[in-house]
Amino acid sequence: MTETATADNPGKLWIVGMGPGDQGLITPEARQAVEASTDLVGYRLYLDLLGPLAQARRRHEAALGEEIRRADMALDLALEGRNTALVSSGDAGIYAMASVLFERLAERPPEERQRLDINIAAGVSAMQVAAAHAGAPLGHDFCTVSLSDLLTPWEVIEKRLHAAAKGDFVVALYNPRSERRDWQLNHAREILQAHRPADTPVVIARHLGRDDENVETNTLEAFEPAHVDMLAVVLVGNSQTRAIDDWVFTPRGYANKES
Amino acid sequence: MTETATADNPGKLWIVGMGPGDQGLITPEARQAVEASTDLVGYRLYLDLLGPLAQARRRHEAALGEEIRRADMALDLALEGRNTALVSSGDAGIYAMASVLFERLAERPPEERQRLDINIAAGVSAMQVAAAHAGAPLGHDFCTVSLSDLLTPWEVIEKRLHAAAKGDFVVALYNPRSERRDWQLNHAREILQAHRPADTPVVIARHLGRDDENVETNTLEAFEPAHVDMLAVVLVGNSQTRAIDDWVFTPRGYANKES
Repeated sequence: MTETATADNPGKLWIVGMGPGDQGLITPEARQAVEASTDLVGYRLYLDLLGPLAQARRRHEAALGEEIRRADMALDLALEGRNTALVSSGDAGIYAMASVLFERLAERPPEERQRLDINIAAGVSAMQVAAAHAGAPLGHDFCTVSLSDLLTPWEVIEKRLHAAAKGDFVVALYNPRSERRDWQLNHAREILQAHRPADTPVVIARHLGRDDENVETNTLEAFEPAHVDMLAVVLVGNSQTRAIDDWVFTPRGYANKES
Repeated sequence: MTETATADNPGKLWIVGMGPGDQGLITPEARQAVEASTDLVGYRLYLDLLGPLAQARRRHEAALGEEIRRADMALDLALEGRNTALVSSGDAGIYAMASVLFERLAERPPEERQRLDINIAAGVSAMQVAAAHAGAPLGHDFCTVSLSDLLTPWEVIEKRLHAAAKGDFVVALYNPRSERRDWQLNHAREILQAHRPADTPVVIARHLGRDDENVETNTLEAFEPAHVDMLAVVLVGNSQTRAIDDWVFTPRGYANKES
């Protein structure tokens, strides 16, 4: 339908996040960006999340762990004149492809950078859906920490966990556990437990947006790390977080409570 | 169209976030929740964000600062049998109405709580759109801190800022400044600057999703607090955050950089 752009006339490059998997959580902006693209770059599972949207488009897949290759493919396709969407799950800007794309962009010569037309569509990140399905655990100041030490040294992660504990932040743990990384989550629990009550509510959200979604509420002391896998996000309340019926929430009304 | 529920048969209560103002950032789930409701509760400005969606529905407005009253209205309407949407901007779970709703729910007798059918729709929060329009500043571990000391004592806020600084978190500052709260932002800058370079990139995003949206990139040392108002969100990079051309991003590849 659209005229094929020439290399002198680069395509538009969209970096999009499609939410955690539920079609109801894909923003219209992200959907339109995919619809306007001829080429999609992504991990196969994320492209599959698009369902019918991904049809009739050239798919460029690369495995998990090949984020640099996917970013380079997206840059090259756009420079070749293709309208390209680099597809993440969640929010492209939160533990997803936007950061890697800019890391790779920074390696390109200025003349290439200047020719590119880059746009980013915000999306809904896993912690937000976990929170929505559990109540309002992120209702006051919070932080996110990825427990993956593939790119970040464990000392940096540990420093952040100590800071989060001291600052009494609600903590969203991404990449909490995998078969090869099985001790970090328990270590994080110990750091947080030194600063907040043993009965602090914890939310474990697995397979969000899929048929087998499971959102479990437990306590910092009692939750079972073995129930957590790579597709989970774990939210740990702060010292004020409360459970009521089946809900967990973090109040903002500190002043009322303490006066 | 739908049968009016009786008080024995309470209405469905949705807590929804409509994003920062752009129709393209309203999730289908949030839109459907509003469409399924007969009654909308919210601050007038947020209901206006809904545009045509808000038409043909009973509007229950309350002023900024009357969050408790809005939460109570939503609970009462649902208990009276009305299908009700409590409308926030952004993500209902992040500095918005979900937390207040549960604070008020906890004050209700068990028989009322058990009759309620509560659902929460996640949305896109201001920091995510600010990040998307600036590059990928939230590309690694980050935290959010509200600088409003209306509900939270300043000592708690200050403790969080020190923790965020020590943990080298990217920091998203919400409610950064108002006419009556004009010194907190500069104080936050001083705390962060003690732990990270003066040229750390800072993103100031104002009036997101509106015609006069403005996303400005500056440095921790040089940014002008007077450019920041109540409708702004401020993102402060961590020690690794970089600027390239007009973009700001925080790389995840610590290991690569340091090896």
